[in-house]
Amino acid sequence: MSADAFAKTPKPPYYAVIFSSQRTTGDDGYEATAGRMVALAAEQPGYLGIQSARSADGFGITVSYWDSEAAIAGWRANAEHRIARETGRTHWYRDFEIRVARVERAYGKPGAARDDADA
Amino acid sequence: MSADAFAKTPKPPYYAVIFSSQRTTGDDGYEATAGRMVALAAEQPGYLGIQSARSADGFGITVSYWDSEAAIAGWRANAEHRIARETGRTHWYRDFEIRVARVERAYGKPGAARDDADA
Repeated sequence: MSADAFAKTPKPPYYAVIFSSQRTTGDDGYEATAGRMVALAAEQPGYLGIQSARSADGFGITVSYWDSEAAIAGWRANAEHRIARETGRTHWYRDFEIRVARVERAYGKPGAARDDADA
Repeated sequence: MSADAFAKTPKPPYYAVIFSSQRTTGDDGYEATAGRMVALAAEQPGYLGIQSARSADGFGITVSYWDSEAAIAGWRANAEHRIARETGRTHWYRDFEIRVARVERAYGKPGAARDDADA
């Protein structure tokens, strides 16, 4: 129930990486690595924010936000991230999809207790 | 655990509406309307797909895909959708954010049992 679940992004345009995944069963080191990747992403140049939800059936969507395509490429090339992705491919995800998109506009609920996209 | 959770989108470019929300507590008609909106969206011109996840803490991400900005505008103008949005604003969501983005590229797990983005 934390407002921190929302990504605090600047005014568009910026980029979004939409990662949809279906988890396999069992943790198998997943939660620790997922937490580490969230922290590591936040240290990368051009990182703007991340938000994530996963339903009880194991289907999840994580959206990370970046200031440029170059920032996405940099994160993709990160060595620790590469290793995590390989384990994801072979162990943690039964299936996944990645979409890279350019955010054109953003808006939110008026009066919500957070930085607004219009700010 | 259904592969149907993944949206079956065509090759990019196309558009994504990323809807992030924090639910209030209690159903209050939410589940029925949410199901109706998913069915109604699928009937709209230019609809490509939808995927959704919500964590146990009530934070959710729904991404709907559309073939054009005009299709997004059409869905936004739908009368039944407008009424649902208003109830969402006043009752179902403590907070929400909407981002409209142009999907530039997409890829998935090789060998996954679904239509691949490269198909």
